[in-house]
Amino acid sequence: MTAASRLVPRDDLAFLLHDWLHVEALTARPRYADHSRETFDAVLDLATTIAAERFAPINRTLDTHEPYVGDDGAVVHPDGLAEALAAYADAGMPAATFDEQYGGMQLPFTVAQAAAAQFSAASIGAVAYPTLALGVANLLVAHGTPEQVATYAQPIIDGRWYGTMCLSEPQAGSSLGDITTRGEVQPDGTYRVFGTKMWISGGDQSLTDNIVHLVLARTAGAAAGVKGISLFVVPKVLVGPDGSPGERNDVALVGLNHKMGYRGTTNTLLNFGEGAHTPGGTAGAVGFLVGEEGRGLSYMFHMMNEARVSVGLGAVALGYTGYRHALEYARTRTQGRPVDAKDPSAPMVPLVEHADVRRMLLAQKSYVEGGLALSLYCARLVDDSLTDPDEAERRRAHELLEMLTPIAKSWPSQWCLAANDLAIQVHGGYGYTRDYAVEQFYRDNRLNPIHEGTHGIQGLDLLGRKVVAGGGAGLALLAETILATTARGREAGGDAEAYAVSLEKALGRLVEVTGILWEGLDPALALANASIYLEAAGHVVVAWIWLEQLLAVSGDSGFARGKRAAAQYFFAFELPKVGPQLDLLASLDRTTLDLDPDDL
Amino acid sequence: MTAASRLVPRDDLAFLLHDWLHVEALTARPRYADHSRETFDAVLDLATTIAAERFAPINRTLDTHEPYVGDDGAVVHPDGLAEALAAYADAGMPAATFDEQYGGMQLPFTVAQAAAAQFSAASIGAVAYPTLALGVANLLVAHGTPEQVATYAQPIIDGRWYGTMCLSEPQAGSSLGDITTRGEVQPDGTYRVFGTKMWISGGDQSLTDNIVHLVLARTAGAAAGVKGISLFVVPKVLVGPDGSPGERNDVALVGLNHKMGYRGTTNTLLNFGEGAHTPGGTAGAVGFLVGEEGRGLSYMFHMMNEARVSVGLGAVALGYTGYRHALEYARTRTQGRPVDAKDPSAPMVPLVEHADVRRMLLAQKSYVEGGLALSLYCARLVDDSLTDPDEAERRRAHELLEMLTPIAKSWPSQWCLAANDLAIQVHGGYGYTRDYAVEQFYRDNRLNPIHEGTHGIQGLDLLGRKVVAGGGAGLALLAETILATTARGREAGGDAEAYAVSLEKALGRLVEVTGILWEGLDPALALANASIYLEAAGHVVVAWIWLEQLLAVSGDSGFARGKRAAAQYFFAFELPKVGPQLDLLASLDRTTLDLDPDDL
Repeated sequence: MTAASRLVPRDDLAFLLHDWLHVEALTARPRYADHSRETFDAVLDLATTIAAERFAPINRTLDTHEPYVGDDGAVVHPDGLAEALAAYADAGMPAATFDEQYGGMQLPFTVAQAAAAQFSAASIGAVAYPTLALGVANLLVAHGTPEQVATYAQPIIDGRWYGTMCLSEPQAGSSLGDITTRGEVQPDGTYRVFGTKMWISGGDQSLTDNIVHLVLARTAGAAAGVKGISLFVVPKVLVGPDGSPGERNDVALVGLNHKMGYRGTTNTLLNFGEGAHTPGGTAGAVGFLVGEEGRGLSYMFHMMNEARVSVGLGAVALGYTGYRHALEYARTRTQGRPVDAKDPSAPMVPLVEHADVRRMLLAQKSYVEGGLALSLYCARLVDDSLTDPDEAERRRAHELLEMLTPIAKSWPSQWCLAANDLAIQVHGGYGYTRDYAVEQFYRDNRLNPIHEGTHGIQGLDLLGRKVVAGGGAGLALLAETILATTARGREAGGDAEAYAVSLEKALGRLVEVTGILWEGLDPALALANASIYLEAAGHVVVAWIWLEQLLAVSGDSGFARGKRAAAQYFFAFELPKVGPQLDLLASLDRTTLDLDPDDL
Repeated sequence: MTAASRLVPRDDLAFLLHDWLHVEALTARPRYADHSRETFDAVLDLATTIAAERFAPINRTLDTHEPYVGDDGAVVHPDGLAEALAAYADAGMPAATFDEQYGGMQLPFTVAQAAAAQFSAASIGAVAYPTLALGVANLLVAHGTPEQVATYAQPIIDGRWYGTMCLSEPQAGSSLGDITTRGEVQPDGTYRVFGTKMWISGGDQSLTDNIVHLVLARTAGAAAGVKGISLFVVPKVLVGPDGSPGERNDVALVGLNHKMGYRGTTNTLLNFGEGAHTPGGTAGAVGFLVGEEGRGLSYMFHMMNEARVSVGLGAVALGYTGYRHALEYARTRTQGRPVDAKDPSAPMVPLVEHADVRRMLLAQKSYVEGGLALSLYCARLVDDSLTDPDEAERRRAHELLEMLTPIAKSWPSQWCLAANDLAIQVHGGYGYTRDYAVEQFYRDNRLNPIHEGTHGIQGLDLLGRKVVAGGGAGLALLAETILATTARGREAGGDAEAYAVSLEKALGRLVEVTGILWEGLDPALALANASIYLEAAGHVVVAWIWLEQLLAVSGDSGFARGKRAAAQYFFAFELPKVGPQLDLLASLDRTTLDLDPDDL
């Protein structure tokens, strides 16, 4: 087996992108007119090769050789990381989706995400640096001045700098309205930023000459809560008019967090304006306002759908590579005999001959392939929301994406982590050792239900915001979209018809339960079990995604039979789990609401 | 908060042992006649104190300072471990359950297990050394010669030596019938043992003068499979007639496994008779047959119920301490405001004020307190099977224990690990860092679904062996026992009655489905989804355990309200999960059975 065989198989990507999502059709749109199936595939080939050859080999090293702060105060990374990231930049990966005017490839986000999956599968702790930076560049392109784009976004697009999103503070994690970092306006219109930021991934590193921090802070007299938050560009190193690095800005690394996993990526506590440096002889970190004061969080949230879909994709990639490792192991490792074998001296059989091992593999397959399809579907919605020639279609894609985003973030974070758990189990004792890769995937993936909005936050977003927005328009749109698929399923007959019937029933119940939850107009009661709502809705959505895949697959190849088996598994073993969840929600259960915390 | 407050609360132990399991009544039996509630409680107090003061402080160190092999070939342990284990031995803990003739305390297993929970909660990687050794001493007391007991068991009971169970080999993990280690009989009746053993916890260490290995091996001409396996005592250091350590036996440490968690306990690959030493100038590790040839596995399995119940208890302890940590954090860390709060400048509230956090805490509580109660119930069955004055009761206790053992092993291994996952989630980003304890519990606990029979093996044991033994007598006994509880629940009225009705329904369906699975007499089909059967049966059993606790709790203290809330949670949120599982089983689903592994 090669390293590439442990990434996402190219045949699954080809099926999802071409047979199902028809990305080639995007080339009819002006933005992608220079592209073709061939250019898309070439990017995927290149990404797969670089991921397999440069990223996969360093993944364990990034875990065992955690970055640390050297004597000179600079972060020390293990060998190989800078070289892998250089190969990534040399291949133009950071510029994949950007406009030609910035030297970008103008690739569809869908194709870029498929490529990103390979890097995350190979070494998520390595690729996180440029991935996080892309969010910064995207935000600046969308909301920054031309000068800010040229000065701070362009070097990121070129792969020369990285960047961060500085939201959380020690006292304000999920509760962003409570941040206290402040930006003080100066006579020249620049700002000085003062405060401490927490959990900043890539907040310091020794890989690039500069780091572009996007920092949420309050200006003087700003409103309390989220409405008083502004966004600032705060570079680690100040930039001269010619773009050359100049004086050190007052951004200081306080410390690195030591995590259970995801260790290749530094995670930092940063001080802004605490006096470690005094740029221009004056106190405070120099910052530049992005857009208007008070709109900082809305700019951040503008990028949130892509960011959250990307977190989900990262979780998928970790689950997927874990599955590929487990499958390889189960096919080669022999152990025991079938349950009905009589002769104890007969040769042992490969693990994959045991039904319970097949169950664990098929569960993983249904989670990771379902998760990947969901992630790429959402990526396609991003593309459609930006470039569909029909304005109504653009709006529709945007609304459906809004609805699906909390699920695309949380579902893979839960179930592709569950896939990693099963990958360990397939390996038995070996899987629990650090001689095998799967335990690292499990540790790495455990971050995903926490960052970019915890599981609980996603539940509140879905049930408290997305399904009620526009008088329930988002949920209605999702239901309509799913029912279009089930209509095709009914027409197709056979298994597809049976699955369509099950899915319609589950969807109908989800819609009904949503009504029950909100009919009392009591948010505390409606949202008490929002996480369970999120999980039930997630399984309904992924069942739909599996029906979509079933309808897109054809022929009787092993690939096609595998897709059908995974769909069969999902409808037989997984979708039924939503029944009790929706019944619980329908009962307006008050157990957690009424619990006196002192009784715990 | 003190270290003790993060262990199992004494009030829960008092409730379970005294109010529910009535351990004081055991003192009416001759074996425990010298005991009283006071002596039981004194042991628990002592265990809690030593665990909190000596074990908890070294737990993180054992994780960060993994044992390694020093230049002289000896294992190096971090500071503090030897001292903690000395305190454990000085308190007489290793002798807790043994006969007075061996210097034992003759404590009921139930009380000893409650004490053991505190050590596992404080540092499972430390206490595993003596815990594993107790299994060796127990086996020798049950099946060894008086001389073997005096020579090899007594030093373990005294706390001076440790011991191991050497079952697995590199090519034979779960498949014990395939071991190839051989024992060659010598003219003097001793044996020479040759082979390689894998996954041996505590297989080498520098904490005791000697290590007593119990080794499964084949003798010349033995039958294939499990019937040809014999058991040998193989000490690391040969023992003189006076019990003093003599020549080094040919047991060689090949290497230490590097695990995701549970790092304080060495896990080893051992060579027996490979020539690292030549005791008496002759090749082979000197071994002494225990009992008769060919009965090795049956001796091991004789101890298996206790061993598996103990694994479950270890999983419970890790889950429990994680819950206590999460509860402490959620009560003190402030973040955000209630979902219906309007004023963004109002003070933040403790995490525990959020319904979703309460849900995560209550779920943990229901898992860990349910798991602890199940573990102690099974321990009580061990005591009853050995000491109940009525022979029929002893048999009944043994049969019920046989039935419950796979569940007592696997259910906490699954759900108390889930509790650790939730404990991380309650901590948010902090929980993902190694500055907080919960991530280590999660890593430590991940071992438990693997060792002492994997989750899948437990499923096969329950559905393939336990429920069919004696024409279904085990399941009938379990059902009868549960129905006795539901009868009391119906009589009690209120919530207990409602829960009793739900439980009877779930139990009835479980029994019905068991019949459906076996009516075709096709083991491959019946057992295809044995793991899911195990999980459904586990939830039914723990629901019963929660009804038992509800019926045993009285008054309106915070403790009593907490028990009622956790019972309410389990019946509302957890028990309904078995519905789809049992429906799937009833459908005799062939998805995993018919899957061609090449299609994966």
